[in-house]
Amino acid sequence: MTRLESAIRRLSAQRDLLDWAARDVESRKGIVVELGLGNGRTYDHLRNRLPGHRIMVFERSVAAHPDCIPSSDCLLLGDIGETLPAFVADGHAGTAILIHADIGTGDTATSDALAAAISPAAEALLAPGGLLVADRAYRLPDCEDISGETGVPQGRYFVYRRR
Amino acid sequence: MTRLESAIRRLSAQRDLLDWAARDVESRKGIVVELGLGNGRTYDHLRNRLPGHRIMVFERSVAAHPDCIPSSDCLLLGDIGETLPAFVADGHAGTAILIHADIGTGDTATSDALAAAISPAAEALLAPGGLLVADRAYRLPDCEDISGETGVPQGRYFVYRRR
Repeated sequence: MTRLESAIRRLSAQRDLLDWAARDVESRKGIVVELGLGNGRTYDHLRNRLPGHRIMVFERSVAAHPDCIPSSDCLLLGDIGETLPAFVADGHAGTAILIHADIGTGDTATSDALAAAISPAAEALLAPGGLLVADRAYRLPDCEDISGETGVPQGRYFVYRRR
Repeated sequence: MTRLESAIRRLSAQRDLLDWAARDVESRKGIVVELGLGNGRTYDHLRNRLPGHRIMVFERSVAAHPDCIPSSDCLLLGDIGETLPAFVADGHAGTAILIHADIGTGDTATSDALAAAISPAAEALLAPGGLLVADRAYRLPDCEDISGETGVPQGRYFVYRRR
């Protein structure tokens, strides 16, 4: 497979997975959380698929397309390793019906370490039955790995549901 | 359409168009030219689809994946506005069976101005019957715009064939 074909497959799997997750959570009450805004593509997709839900975005520094930048009251700027636990501690534990985490920086070891570091806060943020959809494995003892139940080809994305 | 869906459509159209062009030119003798290496995705695709052809890559500064960096004898570093005319003048006029030009920088006006500036050299580089596949319009009086003949949805890519 060429890198062009690989990119198409990766983005298509991401779209299919977000669509699956949006259908799963759309009837529930709670917030949606985007960890890592990046170019804003998946944020744009989530707000389209879940228009009735508030989306909180965590990002170190915004570099997205101007159309895809959240309003300031929905954007938490800074190191996710600090802002996410602070947000949970600030009364938001158990409020997220969906967390989408795409924090890959190109350096796998650094990204995996960040995922491990924020796993406790991410799990605490999830509502019972809420989903974490991520580009890498997280350590979530109170969640079930349901990656195989989405119908999307596995190995590129991980899906967890909080018990 | 969300930006995620738009990205999938754009990359899929790029793949389909390069596949179409590769089938069109594969039996001909001549070089393939990649104007703008970028992340190396389309270079990787072209070398996979046209393994029997030398691919010359023009790029200001290389930022591609390490797997997708051409050997130094196939890589012309510098401002394409200077390196491309110099290459043509250096005995390569009429040698390219396929030029793929993806020089968009995000600033449409700048990219369009560069396309206009290099149009004469790009046209001179094309062999008779050779193709220019591009992410924007070029000014090629000796070429026919055959964008409508590729079967790929129009408006995102332009295809020209030298008479």
